[in-house]
Amino acid sequence: MAKISPFAPERLAELPPIDGVRMASCAAGIRYAGRTDLLLALFEPTTTVAGVLTTSKTAAAAVEWCGEHLRHGMARALVVNSGNANAFTGMRGAAAVKETAHAAANVAGCLDADVYIASTGVIGEPLEPVKFVGRLAELAETATPDAYEAAARAIMTTDTFPKLATRTCKIDGVEITLNGIAKGAGMIAPDMATMLAFLFTDAAIEPGALHAVMAPLVEDSFNAITVDSDTSTSDTVLLFATGTATKRGCPRIATGDDARLDDFRAALADLMRDLAHQIVKDGEGLTKFVKITVTGAESKSAARVIAKSIANSPLVKTAIAGEDPNWGRIVMAVGKAGERADRDKLVIRFGDIEVAKNGEVSPDYKEADGAAYMRRPDIEITVDVGVGGGRDTIWTCDLTKEYIAINADYRS
Amino acid sequence: MAKISPFAPERLAELPPIDGVRMASCAAGIRYAGRTDLLLALFEPTTTVAGVLTTSKTAAAAVEWCGEHLRHGMARALVVNSGNANAFTGMRGAAAVKETAHAAANVAGCLDADVYIASTGVIGEPLEPVKFVGRLAELAETATPDAYEAAARAIMTTDTFPKLATRTCKIDGVEITLNGIAKGAGMIAPDMATMLAFLFTDAAIEPGALHAVMAPLVEDSFNAITVDSDTSTSDTVLLFATGTATKRGCPRIATGDDARLDDFRAALADLMRDLAHQIVKDGEGLTKFVKITVTGAESKSAARVIAKSIANSPLVKTAIAGEDPNWGRIVMAVGKAGERADRDKLVIRFGDIEVAKNGEVSPDYKEADGAAYMRRPDIEITVDVGVGGGRDTIWTCDLTKEYIAINADYRS
Repeated sequence: MAKISPFAPERLAELPPIDGVRMASCAAGIRYAGRTDLLLALFEPTTTVAGVLTTSKTAAAAVEWCGEHLRHGMARALVVNSGNANAFTGMRGAAAVKETAHAAANVAGCLDADVYIASTGVIGEPLEPVKFVGRLAELAETATPDAYEAAARAIMTTDTFPKLATRTCKIDGVEITLNGIAKGAGMIAPDMATMLAFLFTDAAIEPGALHAVMAPLVEDSFNAITVDSDTSTSDTVLLFATGTATKRGCPRIATGDDARLDDFRAALADLMRDLAHQIVKDGEGLTKFVKITVTGAESKSAARVIAKSIANSPLVKTAIAGEDPNWGRIVMAVGKAGERADRDKLVIRFGDIEVAKNGEVSPDYKEADGAAYMRRPDIEITVDVGVGGGRDTIWTCDLTKEYIAINADYRS
Repeated sequence: MAKISPFAPERLAELPPIDGVRMASCAAGIRYAGRTDLLLALFEPTTTVAGVLTTSKTAAAAVEWCGEHLRHGMARALVVNSGNANAFTGMRGAAAVKETAHAAANVAGCLDADVYIASTGVIGEPLEPVKFVGRLAELAETATPDAYEAAARAIMTTDTFPKLATRTCKIDGVEITLNGIAKGAGMIAPDMATMLAFLFTDAAIEPGALHAVMAPLVEDSFNAITVDSDTSTSDTVLLFATGTATKRGCPRIATGDDARLDDFRAALADLMRDLAHQIVKDGEGLTKFVKITVTGAESKSAARVIAKSIANSPLVKTAIAGEDPNWGRIVMAVGKAGERADRDKLVIRFGDIEVAKNGEVSPDYKEADGAAYMRRPDIEITVDVGVGGGRDTIWTCDLTKEYIAINADYRS
């Protein structure tokens, strides 16, 4: 068992109940005995859903299932298992998803199409629904509105702490709650970094509008983090809106650009960013939480390419692990990104310390200042590439021997 | 000092003299005392040159100098220093290159424009030519035709062995020699992975033709290797052709598509591939030399994107370091590459062992066979993505704790 991340929160967020959401989890023995590995969430019939799924060309069976049913945008149940990703399992994998959906639909009293599924864990072994579908009835009976922490734990794999966040906001004056749980890019023991996030709200928002609000926010939250540049076959973000706030006079919103959603959008963005940061903060073997901002690029997307080039560079990541203010490696990573940058206008800052400008080291920069800054647990690196107004920020962590140990040694 | 790579050759290649090439090297104290760090090569006035330089947007001053002068394509001298990359050094960096070229031109009795320069080492510190230009006259006087091994050592930084290769071929029946030295992607202590290769031949080939022959060969040699996905600001490949073979009746070739160059092209390709493989085999901290072939892609370039996605995946590289036949991570890396792939037709092989086909694990595959294969020092991974006829091969190494130690701990 890996030691708990130094960035684990001292106290877990306490998530209030959301009217219309009940959940329960159990240890079904999917891969390991005695580890909670099955989550069932049940939703009121008024619940809409929006989702963003992995862009992987080798997406897992459950991802394909969700992609198909997100089109109608209604949801009654969510089933998540850890221990087996049911990825690269061919026809048998697809059959396992169908069987799971059917069993969950039976206990939820809904259509198979209203069941959403996510799986995380080992790749290449077909999931055997027989192992756990028998447990779903019991989970439905025991489901409660206050089981978020247990749910967050049930979806963990190599995560060292459960990831929970909550926010409130107002829609047309009515108080709305947003809850979220996630699992991280601590790689799935033993296979890959799957990112799962499940978000819940009592807001009443039509499926199209829900998607229009949520999908763009992924860009600056879950898509703005990178641990090791690897993309899972199973990455899934789902937002369930029960609509139960209508009982308290909240209007049902039909379009994403409705101004009454502004506060909701801001709260949702904040919730998603919070969960995304928690995922990075549980990156395997990390010792540093790193924010990288690129300014002066040709566009936001160019800034992102450069920021990711820095964040994913093994040389930059190992320098940070070594608390080495090695800005030469940042110059290298800017150069290899392929986006336009003016070498002779480059500005690099560590926090407030100006390290380089005008294509060379700053006259006042002292290596000792950079070295002292690098000993902080939270590092901010800002790079201006001097060609335009595009800017972007991403978050990452360092690359340590512990990462190698976790990923190279697990079978030994 | 890092321990010598397990893939270092038992015997270094012995390079024969090439008429028209003389070289000498010395310890000029550019960064470290007592380490050979300066190389001067002198060429006959008939010498043509072709080059391929880094695509980095933050290229070093010497790279810009070479790019400008490669246009006329004639060469009389090459100066290479290790210890300081003279990269990201602004106006002072450019001035240092000019001063070095001028000093070398004086001792070679040629124009400044006929001098080519490469620098490798720490970034961000301006090179001080005063440290070494005074040594160039002595090097010119002592230059000999048989100093290749010393030259290969002079350009080393964290390389653990000098990289040398030689080939012969015929042009119109006349025997031609090709020699090459390189330094590797063992990262420059302490800054970055700079790849330098200098190639020499007595063939007589006009600059345009020389470029036409050499440049495409970079694609399947130096561009087909990756240690850690990082691209240096200083990567440089230069091929010098003295033309002295004309004394032995060899024709001077004016166009790259001249059929008399076919054998030369094949020998040059082989020489470049040999040096490129030596560079990977000196990758920092490596324990495995890995060949990755992707077939069935939409095009050769699509196959390369997928092959690089596999080769650069930290999860794949750490699995190989752990001798773990973790083919699930290969599926992941294929998926994240973004190129078209048919998940349900994917075939994965370790050597001759068929691991997966038709989107799932092969019925006859035994984990024990995969595990036994992974214990080999040389690993071959082949992936067919099932959508077309495009194929490509690249070479890489594993990612070990030793890599992290070399790159994170060097200042401690």
